[in-house]
Amino acid sequence: MLRDPSVKYRPFPQVDLPDRQWPSRTITRPPRWLSTDLRDGNQALIDPMDGEKKTRFFDLICKVGIKEIEVGFPAAGATEFDFISGLVKSGRIPDDVTIQVLTQSRRDLIETSFESLRGAPKAIVHLYNAVSPAWRKIVFGMTRDEVRGIAVEGAKILRDQAAAQPDTDWHFEYSPETFSTAELDFSIEVCEAVMEVLRPTPDHPLILNLPATVEAATPNIYADQIEWFGKHIRNRDSVIISLHPHNDRGTGVAAAELGLMAGADRVEGCLLGNGERTGNCDLVTVALNMYTQGIDPKLDFSDIDSIINTVTYCNQLPVHPRHPYAGELVFTAFSGSHQDAIKKGFAAQAERNDEYWEVPYLPIDPADLGRSYEAVIRVNSQSGKGGVAWVIEQDKGLKLPKRLQADFSRHVQALADETSRELNAEDIWGKFEATYLRKPGDRFALLDYHESGSAGDRLFVGRVSIDGEERSISGRGNGLISGVIAALSDTTGPQLDVVDYSEHAIGHGADAQAAAYVECRTSDGRTVFGVGIDADIATASVRAVLSAANAA
Amino acid sequence: MLRDPSVKYRPFPQVDLPDRQWPSRTITRPPRWLSTDLRDGNQALIDPMDGEKKTRFFDLICKVGIKEIEVGFPAAGATEFDFISGLVKSGRIPDDVTIQVLTQSRRDLIETSFESLRGAPKAIVHLYNAVSPAWRKIVFGMTRDEVRGIAVEGAKILRDQAAAQPDTDWHFEYSPETFSTAELDFSIEVCEAVMEVLRPTPDHPLILNLPATVEAATPNIYADQIEWFGKHIRNRDSVIISLHPHNDRGTGVAAAELGLMAGADRVEGCLLGNGERTGNCDLVTVALNMYTQGIDPKLDFSDIDSIINTVTYCNQLPVHPRHPYAGELVFTAFSGSHQDAIKKGFAAQAERNDEYWEVPYLPIDPADLGRSYEAVIRVNSQSGKGGVAWVIEQDKGLKLPKRLQADFSRHVQALADETSRELNAEDIWGKFEATYLRKPGDRFALLDYHESGSAGDRLFVGRVSIDGEERSISGRGNGLISGVIAALSDTTGPQLDVVDYSEHAIGHGADAQAAAYVECRTSDGRTVFGVGIDADIATASVRAVLSAANAA
Repeated sequence: MLRDPSVKYRPFPQVDLPDRQWPSRTITRPPRWLSTDLRDGNQALIDPMDGEKKTRFFDLICKVGIKEIEVGFPAAGATEFDFISGLVKSGRIPDDVTIQVLTQSRRDLIETSFESLRGAPKAIVHLYNAVSPAWRKIVFGMTRDEVRGIAVEGAKILRDQAAAQPDTDWHFEYSPETFSTAELDFSIEVCEAVMEVLRPTPDHPLILNLPATVEAATPNIYADQIEWFGKHIRNRDSVIISLHPHNDRGTGVAAAELGLMAGADRVEGCLLGNGERTGNCDLVTVALNMYTQGIDPKLDFSDIDSIINTVTYCNQLPVHPRHPYAGELVFTAFSGSHQDAIKKGFAAQAERNDEYWEVPYLPIDPADLGRSYEAVIRVNSQSGKGGVAWVIEQDKGLKLPKRLQADFSRHVQALADETSRELNAEDIWGKFEATYLRKPGDRFALLDYHESGSAGDRLFVGRVSIDGEERSISGRGNGLISGVIAALSDTTGPQLDVVDYSEHAIGHGADAQAAAYVECRTSDGRTVFGVGIDADIATASVRAVLSAANAA
Repeated sequence: MLRDPSVKYRPFPQVDLPDRQWPSRTITRPPRWLSTDLRDGNQALIDPMDGEKKTRFFDLICKVGIKEIEVGFPAAGATEFDFISGLVKSGRIPDDVTIQVLTQSRRDLIETSFESLRGAPKAIVHLYNAVSPAWRKIVFGMTRDEVRGIAVEGAKILRDQAAAQPDTDWHFEYSPETFSTAELDFSIEVCEAVMEVLRPTPDHPLILNLPATVEAATPNIYADQIEWFGKHIRNRDSVIISLHPHNDRGTGVAAAELGLMAGADRVEGCLLGNGERTGNCDLVTVALNMYTQGIDPKLDFSDIDSIINTVTYCNQLPVHPRHPYAGELVFTAFSGSHQDAIKKGFAAQAERNDEYWEVPYLPIDPADLGRSYEAVIRVNSQSGKGGVAWVIEQDKGLKLPKRLQADFSRHVQALADETSRELNAEDIWGKFEATYLRKPGDRFALLDYHESGSAGDRLFVGRVSIDGEERSISGRGNGLISGVIAALSDTTGPQLDVVDYSEHAIGHGADAQAAAYVECRTSDGRTVFGVGIDADIATASVRAVLSAANAA
């Protein structure tokens, strides 16, 4: 790097917009969406899609609910032309979907473009030429007048070609390409010159697409440009202002959002943000951002995984694990405090019993995207008791008491530190069994027992293996548990006081089991926990006490 | 998905900020940077880093030039504590780097945190508690007063612990966690209560970190919140306002940028955007965005690939091919028109011969990040003549004339369509050789020749293999080329007219070669091209004519 980048780079100029409105506005309705996956997305792929992939992607875009689809650049080559022409003839374009093709402003290319669309009931032809000073100077060596002339010439050919194929309902889009780095007044001048030729009306508007071909400034500047353009363009009601942000500065989604606040009507982008270099603005994220504000984007991402599968297959590019809404890890909490809060959020949600979504750390209900809750809480060395308890509850139906959660999470923490990897549900259950349910070398194991007596005076008589030797023990108490404690105190076993006891059913019906938890204090002041699981609740509590005795 | 998301989700409320300033501001200097890779980043990993990885990552952060590094959560477990305590004792913390640790507001956790830092010459202790209504209600079941009380209690323990270890220069950070979804007045109230205890001054300010713990609104709202906070907080000159954006809506970088415009002093984030769920704000992108505006971020990314290597090794997470500045594809153009523009941009750059960077489609010079230009232009079926010519020129030094570029690109296009994959330089050169230099079945091949005569009247006498048979041919012309043409016209070979001819040297010195290009018209009106390469320029032009004859 240069020591001082100001020698090589200059700050992007501000827009003169004294009465700026967009920062006080919000997005209240969805825009028109245009997918350019098959054009801007495709041209940026290492391996561009073949016909099979293009068709599959086209069907996906339709299924998502996008009504305007840029399907390619018909004059770019035989593959492109044949796909587009074949699509038109295939009958697979839904009635409410309009396809769009891109063309540079040259007669032969425009004619080829119209030819590819022959027979379409409705289509958008998208004309572009670059207007910014860098392109005029470096790429074309042209004056402003010459550049405007190219746009006007193209518009005339569009108009004439459309007249020659009157059976199609033609619509037009014009892009003053490299808009975001061009002089605003010149972009307006060129757009208005094109409008002079195409004569749009409020009923048959012209789409003016204003690309951030290369993202070159903070996204508020793009919003300023859009608001400025909307204020100054003649016959505003006869044009649809379309956004086409790229993502070179990582703020393409923000540019689309602020641009919509600034008055744009339409957003062009790709599913999951494919596209030239850093990608086009990601339509999934923009749409789901709206969705989480209670605004229906009119796009359906309820099966996000099948969308990811098709997009990654067609693009041969991965989705990052942290990609908003779609990544593998975006609903996952490993951290203990996060897990605890999420667990409480789900519980509060269940208790409140309304539809309003308010769960800490989850800005959207994963279920709305077809994701299960399984991936929400995962356990590694950063996890605390909340997460571990959640996994045990989800997986085995055990609702561990608070202090038992804390006790067990120390065991899990040690295991996580020891293995240095994420623990799965099986690891955690294995640790739970080994800690509380049975382990080799346990001193006490229940073989059989009998209980008798009246309320408040119970006799426990048990057959128990102690240190590998079968023995009969008995004890009296005001209940079963105190009877077992008393019986144990007659042996070489530990002297225990029961500090806390709880139990609950696991599952329903004939297969239901019971879980019992005891927390005991030993004669030397230590706290030990015991857990018992059995088809019979009484037996579960006997097991829980023996489990505590084993721990002591 | 629900048919109407408004049942489940609500729009984020606007901030009452009538005299909003930030949209008219720009970023003019770098903030203080805080890397939380080892804390917020680490706690979000599937496999948290072990000590070796943490140390390696720490060294990288220092090398990049970040001066404040959050190294962990000392009270979270033995691994964390030992790493931090070991780091303090290791002597590997540079003198100008301050480490920071995070703690919840509980006496035992705070004491453990201070203990881990024992012996550090300087450190920041970062205290947090969640203040937003959802957390108060769902997670803690606490009133505002109780939540403020937790912060104040924690601050008192910080103050007292610091007094007990006077050899360390202590600094404090307080985070009203979940700031972006909390009531602004309550966040101010809690922060000011903490300030009452810690008594910051302009010389020893308190860092107030204002996290977008979960990104829940468009990034302009976060900027509004930051500006509102900065306007209303007491003793503004005694606090450092720190941003901590997450990326749930894909606008974390934008939030950081607009937040800086709104008056923040410091940015917390991770390298390449690791962190909980969708990640923390990516410090690489925020810093390089500044860099491309001529503002020195005071961070060094001049060897981006080594940074990527360490970060992906430590995090065990990939960098997406379209990740701004860092992804494999972000400087790559496949599309013909893009390639053409870039090629012209480089040429104009070379001609202008100043340091100012202005190349279409490349917002930053890849060389500033240690990237070579090799990856800039790659060729597949979307590529045009510009890109193909660039590859041939970069790889072999051949500067193909315009019309030859067009001719050759048709051959490359066909090959790309046929193979349906990206073409590498070897593919392209192979096609060039097969098309123009020699191919099995060529009718004409030069064996030897002799040239004589005076200016304007040259005699060419050549030994040529024609249709596999060795023959001697001769012809006269006003130059060598016309002599060869004349000699050919005496054979069964084609009748050719030379339309264009050019030549240039390849390389310098003794190893230099020469390239000659001819464009000819055949007697039946077709255009054919020929190319010759030889150590001798005269021989190269003879070869070029025979190459054209082969094409005819």
